Amino acid sequence: MLRETASGLLDRTLGRFLKSLRSGGQGEIPLLDRVHPDLDDPSDQEHLRKRVDACIEGRGGEVSARAQAAALGEMYLALKRAGRVRFLRMLEEEYDTDPQAIGEAIDAFRPTLATIDPEHGSEKERRAHRIALDHLRRALIPRRLRLFKRFNGLNGGVKFLVDLRADALDAKREHPDLIGVDEDLRALLASWFDPGFLKLRRITWESPAFVLEKLIGYEAVHEIRSWDDLKNRLEPDRRCYAFFHPNMHAEPLIFVQVALVRGMSSSVQALLDPTAPLEDPLAADCAIFYSISNCQRGLSGVSFGNFLIKQVATDIARDLPDIKTFATLSPMPDFRSWLDARLEEEEGLLDPAQATTILELADNPDGIPAGSALRTLLDRPHWNEDADLTNALRPILLHLAARFLSETSSSTAQRGKRSLDRVAHFHLDNGARIERINWLGDISKRGLEQSAGIMVNYRYVLEDVEDNHERYCATGEAPISMEVKRLAKRK
Amino acid sequence: MLRETASGLLDRTLGRFLKSLRSGGQGEIPLLDRVHPDLDDPSDQEHLRKRVDACIEGRGGEVSARAQAAALGEMYLALKRAGRVRFLRMLEEEYDTDPQAIGEAIDAFRPTLATIDPEHGSEKERRAHRIALDHLRRALIPRRLRLFKRFNGLNGGVKFLVDLRADALDAKREHPDLIGVDEDLRALLASWFDPGFLKLRRITWESPAFVLEKLIGYEAVHEIRSWDDLKNRLEPDRRCYAFFHPNMHAEPLIFVQVALVRGMSSSVQALLDPTAPLEDPLAADCAIFYSISNCQRGLSGVSFGNFLIKQVATDIARDLPDIKTFATLSPMPDFRSWLDARLEEEEGLLDPAQATTILELADNPDGIPAGSALRTLLDRPHWNEDADLTNALRPILLHLAARFLSETSSSTAQRGKRSLDRVAHFHLDNGARIERINWLGDISKRGLEQSAGIMVNYRYVLEDVEDNHERYCATGEAPISMEVKRLAKRK
Amino acid sequence: MLRETASGLLDRTLGRFLKSLRSGGQGEIPLLDRVHPDLDDPSDQEHLRKRVDACIEGRGGEVSARAQAAALGEMYLALKRAGRVRFLRMLEEEYDTDPQAIGEAIDAFRPTLATIDPEHGSEKERRAHRIALDHLRRALIPRRLRLFKRFNGLNGGVKFLVDLRADALDAKREHPDLIGVDEDLRALLASWFDPGFLKLRRITWESPAFVLEKLIGYEAVHEIRSWDDLKNRLEPDRRCYAFFHPNMHAEPLIFVQVALVRGMSSSVQALLDPTAPLEDPLAADCAIFYSISNCQRGLSGVSFGNFLIKQVATDIARDLPDIKTFATLSPMPDFRSWLDARLEEEEGLLDPAQATTILELADNPDGIPAGSALRTLLDRPHWNEDADLTNALRPILLHLAARFLSETSSSTAQRGKRSLDRVAHFHLDNGARIERINWLGDISKRGLEQSAGIMVNYRYVLEDVEDNHERYCATGEAPISMEVKRLAKRK
Amino acid sequence: MLRETASGLLDRTLGRFLKSLRSGGQGEIPLLDRVHPDLDDPSDQEHLRKRVDACIEGRGGEVSARAQAAALGEMYLALKRAGRVRFLRMLEEEYDTDPQAIGEAIDAFRPTLATIDPEHGSEKERRAHRIALDHLRRALIPRRLRLFKRFNGLNGGVKFLVDLRADALDAKREHPDLIGVDEDLRALLASWFDPGFLKLRRITWESPAFVLEKLIGYEAVHEIRSWDDLKNRLEPDRRCYAFFHPNMHAEPLIFVQVALVRGMSSSVQALLDPTAPLEDPLAADCAIFYSISNCQRGLSGVSFGNFLIKQVATDIARDLPDIKTFATLSPMPDFRSWLDARLEEEEGLLDPAQATTILELADNPDGIPAGSALRTLLDRPHWNEDADLTNALRPILLHLAARFLSETSSSTAQRGKRSLDRVAHFHLDNGARIERINWLGDISKRGLEQSAGIMVNYRYVLEDVEDNHERYCATGEAPISMEVKRLAKRK
Repeated sequence: MLRETASGLLDRTLGRFLKSLRSGGQGEIPLLDRVHPDLDDPSDQEHLRKRVDACIEGRGGEVSARAQAAALGEMYLALKRAGRVRFLRMLEEEYDTDPQAIGEAIDAFRPTLATIDPEHGSEKERRAHRIALDHLRRALIPRRLRLFKRFNGLNGGVKFLVDLRADALDAKREHPDLIGVDEDLRALLASWFDPGFLKLRRITWESPAFVLEKLIGYEAVHEIRSWDDLKNRLEPDRRCYAFFHPNMHAEPLIFVQVALVRGMSSSVQALLDPTAPLEDPLAADCAIFYSISNCQRGLSGVSFGNFLIKQVATDIARDLPDIKTFATLSPMPDFRSWLDARLEEEEGLLDPAQATTILELADNPDGIPAGSALRTLLDRPHWNEDADLTNALRPILLHLAARFLSETSSSTAQRGKRSLDRVAHFHLDNGARIERINWLGDISKRGLEQSAGIMVNYRYVLEDVEDNHERYCATGEAPISMEVKRLAKRK
Repeated sequence: MLRETASGLLDRTLGRFLKSLRSGGQGEIPLLDRVHPDLDDPSDQEHLRKRVDACIEGRGGEVSARAQAAALGEMYLALKRAGRVRFLRMLEEEYDTDPQAIGEAIDAFRPTLATIDPEHGSEKERRAHRIALDHLRRALIPRRLRLFKRFNGLNGGVKFLVDLRADALDAKREHPDLIGVDEDLRALLASWFDPGFLKLRRITWESPAFVLEKLIGYEAVHEIRSWDDLKNRLEPDRRCYAFFHPNMHAEPLIFVQVALVRGMSSSVQALLDPTAPLEDPLAADCAIFYSISNCQRGLSGVSFGNFLIKQVATDIARDLPDIKTFATLSPMPDFRSWLDARLEEEEGLLDPAQATTILELADNPDGIPAGSALRTLLDRPHWNEDADLTNALRPILLHLAARFLSETSSSTAQRGKRSLDRVAHFHLDNGARIERINWLGDISKRGLEQSAGIMVNYRYVLEDVEDNHERYCATGEAPISMEVKRLAKRK
Repeated sequence: MLRETASGLLDRTLGRFLKSLRSGGQGEIPLLDRVHPDLDDPSDQEHLRKRVDACIEGRGGEVSARAQAAALGEMYLALKRAGRVRFLRMLEEEYDTDPQAIGEAIDAFRPTLATIDPEHGSEKERRAHRIALDHLRRALIPRRLRLFKRFNGLNGGVKFLVDLRADALDAKREHPDLIGVDEDLRALLASWFDPGFLKLRRITWESPAFVLEKLIGYEAVHEIRSWDDLKNRLEPDRRCYAFFHPNMHAEPLIFVQVALVRGMSSSVQALLDPTAPLEDPLAADCAIFYSISNCQRGLSGVSFGNFLIKQVATDIARDLPDIKTFATLSPMPDFRSWLDARLEEEEGLLDPAQATTILELADNPDGIPAGSALRTLLDRPHWNEDADLTNALRPILLHLAARFLSETSSSTAQRGKRSLDRVAHFHLDNGARIERINWLGDISKRGLEQSAGIMVNYRYVLEDVEDNHERYCATGEAPISMEVKRLAKRK
Repeated sequence: MLRETASGLLDRTLGRFLKSLRSGGQGEIPLLDRVHPDLDDPSDQEHLRKRVDACIEGRGGEVSARAQAAALGEMYLALKRAGRVRFLRMLEEEYDTDPQAIGEAIDAFRPTLATIDPEHGSEKERRAHRIALDHLRRALIPRRLRLFKRFNGLNGGVKFLVDLRADALDAKREHPDLIGVDEDLRALLASWFDPGFLKLRRITWESPAFVLEKLIGYEAVHEIRSWDDLKNRLEPDRRCYAFFHPNMHAEPLIFVQVALVRGMSSSVQALLDPTAPLEDPLAADCAIFYSISNCQRGLSGVSFGNFLIKQVATDIARDLPDIKTFATLSPMPDFRSWLDARLEEEEGLLDPAQATTILELADNPDGIPAGSALRTLLDRPHWNEDADLTNALRPILLHLAARFLSETSSSTAQRGKRSLDRVAHFHLDNGARIERINWLGDISKRGLEQSAGIMVNYRYVLEDVEDNHERYCATGEAPISMEVKRLAKRK
């Protein structure tokens, strides 16, 4: 993956870097000497080290230091995977904090701690404390951070760092020690991508082609198959919104697709059908968020989906006051793996009547347990097209899905209590409630495999989201509609 | 000053806050109970404390926390000076770091320092080190910082923080212990106002009135007397540029005024003369930066003048390729106070011939020293209008000005070696060189009082600025033209 | 007036012309030889004639012809009044239609008229008719029209023509034969300024300074005294809108100022009071159009006020749904002159009780008639400040004003029946109704002199404007509120 | 064709019409009663007549009249082909000028012609002349023109008229009497689409998708096969420009595609090759206009290609000063039909040596003439792939092509003298010169069939275009390079 993105980055970002340098008007571009793309030559490494040092020290002034950063970025983009990993490891090992400096700073600071109480401690002691504190803070900043910050303001510089983090995440799988580079980049990017800096933009068929092209590439939930398919999703009865960062204006960070419909949607195939007639958006009473996709792997761990949904709901509510219901149409990607595990381990998951039904459906002579039989049924290709089967499975699976959604994981591995399903967790943490479970809501291959074809409507009642969020965080308790509660009860 | 800005802020910012809250669509605005504008009632303070705590903890989710920050901002803007100072001191004293937590974090961290050497230390030890490091870093973050960050993304929120820092700077004069609030705000704003985030915009007579209105208000060097005067400064033979921040788009941060002329300008009164004929900008060979004004007191200590001048020069060079010379026309605001001090202390500053000339000019029967006589002459109102006097003083003062500019302060009080004049220091630190000294370049009252009417051209040769900057930083040595060097030599 | 505008035009428009030519990239600018600014030298005139001919014939292609038009425009702007008048008369006399060509075209066309009936006339005859018709139409186009059209697309070209028409209107007072130039320009501009091409823009304190500057200059009804006064009129409880033309984007054509208030305003001084507190626009129920100003004298006879009011009302209604009432606060500029004439001619305008009241107020020993006494009272400076007087006059003048508004002129001089008052005619023709008459609604000098201090609210009920318009056009009958009808009745 | 465009128009334009009406805020939309889509019911026709009359008379005011026009437009778009033709014929026959009114106007005007000489004729007589002239002009305006003008300013109204003219052009093939509707629309659109009103916009991959989508649809010369193909044509070494009209902003009128290359291109396949490496635009010295497409059939006869090429050349020259050569790479679409006709009629077109060569190549036993043999050779599929053949044909066909280009048609059917080739005529009339003929410059099926694979570079030397244009218009003489002149000479 590292390899593949490289050339794309090269083509596009390189052009911008060069432009950035040229438009900086700094005369000669301080190009690096050519290094081998694997960066395995010690003299190349030594050369690079000098350039990194020079950039960090910035003796020629801030403008010049940024030009040097651009040259380093350009060099990096020309590296192959092996070279990139070597460079990242160099940053990890050689450009961290200085333990000796930290030790000294702590030794100087420790004694001043006693003096900061305003009632004790003289003015002079408190000033000394403050100075020692600043020294300590500075000692705790790794050197590589100054290098990273130089990229801000370069054309394509912020995108470069985001992609550098994506590379670091990739490389970390094999080199777990890259934790420092990864974490420093994440923290820096989290401060730069504070929601306060992001701009919400509506995406329409009037949007620039280069933005739309990225939507096609980034859609992760329900693939956009062509420009025509995209156009279909931008018709007047749809809305699409994305967050952008002012210094990365061509790159959506996250986007959401919304359908404006009458009544809460229950089937994603119906929503995506290109032959479906255009609905009158003025007659809609319901906004269905049917796809949310993060676009920047390098920003994983930096969250803004929460802000996105609330701002979009607000925007739609202002525009179309007749829309009263805001809800998602979401998969349960962790349902089948939970179900399989539970069917294996737990005797009593299915009641006797359910077990009998399943065994009959499975036409099972071998006396295998009902749990296994159910799994076999769900693994059959196109099982959703067998009406007898689906009619019989429907009450059983809806009940199991309702139970799945209602349960909370409290494993200590994860901080706090949270839903068993990652999508459920995302929406519950945002303050939504579990509103409805839809049988055969997604009959795509993936939908059947992961969610047993079931989709969930999570509903956002704007007045309740804060209370919901708070209760869920504190107790793991999710707000659930009466209908789903009933489903979850064992009859 | 705190008082005066208050109401202005109130009118304008309050409106935006309310709009921010309303457009946030969060239903009810969580208004604070009314507090007394002096904030001297302990129960008011207690109420406030609870609201600040709630905002910092953000239990209702991030969106809600920002709405609470907006309500706090609104409350603050309604306070009088005394109330504001009380609030700032509360933040200083009660929302700092927790010494005990720091102490514990240090105690946990200290032992892990030994393990971070990649060659020693196991994987597990190094991971423990990293976790301890994160804890320590977090312990070093004062609680108030989380409050401040909540303001980002609010309409007017960034401007609110900038103005809060201005209030803190004012209040710090009487309450020097406000150092923590001041420094935390400065550091936060420095990261938010990184030059990479700023946008350079040209200001013309087509710019929005609310921006131009601010230029009139902020111009610090050569007062803009009216809208007509401003229009005159935006004619085709002038350029005006400003830096803006994306989240504070209505507020220039710093702006520079440039005249496009033939030959380097020597008199600022000639530049500002509204009756002067319009020059053809295509015939100009010289861009004169005749005024640079910082607009936001709350951003003092956050510097971008350096970037501004270089970007503006680059922009002009691209637009008008015939312009080859970029120079300032600048005052020497510290010249007279230096001169007075030196004339007092130093016998031999004036040579005998100069002393004689001065004594004759002063028509001095009382035998006072030449130094005092010179000071008396320069204190005479309108001395610049006496041709005999100016002819005689010209060589003497130009010589003294050249010496003044050439000398470097190396007092240990200031970090490193730097010019005696604050304006000279700004330009030399940016990499400019001292090009020319202009007799009677500024005959305004202030120009005569501070600079003895002399103005300096600092020249920016784009190819040399980096070397100049580096040498000046390292040695305090300023690049000086032959002409000024000759003037500085004692004959 | 011709003289005064000249230099202003010269400064600004000339620059744009030159830029237009230069940016046309046509190499050398085909500058005209210098002509004397009075254009009184026959050889200059001959030179000019050749250039006009060349431009009209356009042998070098369309792009070149427009460059020549620009050069002619530049020449024109450098002329003094006398020269301009000479040039306009040359266009009138020498660049009209060719009577002989018209005669021939008519002779060729006349016989074909018989053939155009589709039932008679062969295909061939009808084609011949069509060709003859085209010839005739072309013969009726004056040559100067081709010159005028060349200015379209030049920077400042459309504005040049608008100002040329203003010059023609001025000159026509002394030279009534300029009717052809005037009318040709009017017709051309009417087609270019079709409401379908105009853009409605809201004017705020964020608008470009050069637009706001023009508002200050053009406001004709209630003078804008300064930039501060203007800012006051752009506060959130005000709205200002203007029409612009795409090829004259810096120049408003007409603008309207609206106050958002609770209850229909009765006093313009209250509206204009800069110390009045800001109203909450969300609480307003009424939009008061208190000033409409045409900006381009050269567009007189080309009307768009009708469109402006309706579009503005629509825009406000969409933005602020609580605003239900749209009304003007308007002067009656023709009231006093009507009143004076009627008091002179008509014995019974005042009833005996009124006459007695007036004579008492006038403290009149000389037995002059009540009508003269009333006029004398109204000519007293500051009569509005005498409470006894105003209390006594109030019912009398309100009655007379109501009668004045209710009456319709049907003089044959004016086409059709229309109101006696020009402002009333404008609004009634737009479909408004006479809603209320306000005593001492405008106590400015002009308000007292022209309207006896009375102001009228014309109300626009959007559902009724078309019917109202149609009835008023057909019969001169104005819709009048019960309240005003009652006032108009003789008691 | 009429049929096919209809539904497209309906979908898109209807929406805009409805929006236009709704946003006009005129309350109820004055919808027409449903008419039969064939419009063959006399009562439908009568109903329609009344609505057209009402719209033309506009008794309810201008705003209302435009709303009625929108309703009529909506009705029209719902008609099928037969209904549309009926409607157009109704406009042709019933909404023309009134012959009787014209006759009377002529009778009143004719006598006044004698009086307009300024030296004879009194002021009063001349005024009477002017009034009679205005009456005559007005009588010559067909009634339908007022209907057409009402569409201006409606959302989609201008586009509606453009499409209406396209329908009229289609219908005129069968109904040649539609000449009046066609010509009235053409004249109105020519005035609205005066080049002075058009905006040149660069089209890039940042342009809105709905504009790019139209480029794909409209490209007439070298088909754009997909979004990827389009993206390839918008890379940094390409430029694409289009003209837009302010009231039809989503619709390009004409666009041109330009390649930035080193040396004048000779092969269009090389230009269109998606695998060709990206060239550095800063290294280019030549801009090749390789495709110009008109987008609006309804604007045929309204020309702006001339303006487009000159403005684009100017824009590129300013941006990239190293580009010194502006030339096209153009087909000769009329070459083969000319060649075939000449080979048939003219004995001596080929000289004996050429004839021998051709007969040998044709391997011709039957003694058919060389002319026929050549035609047979050129009709062979893929003849361009036979190297022997192409080597032998090359000098012969280049000579014939050069002769073809050099010859001028002077048939009286066409106005004036003009090139035999329609593309040559377009560029020569614009002032270009014939620079180079390229063997196998276009080996597409169409290129081989129409142009015998040959392409021409027409070169635009900006300083010469006006002289070239004028000479070509006057004499039909085309500027030809020495190289092409030599080719054209018989050896």
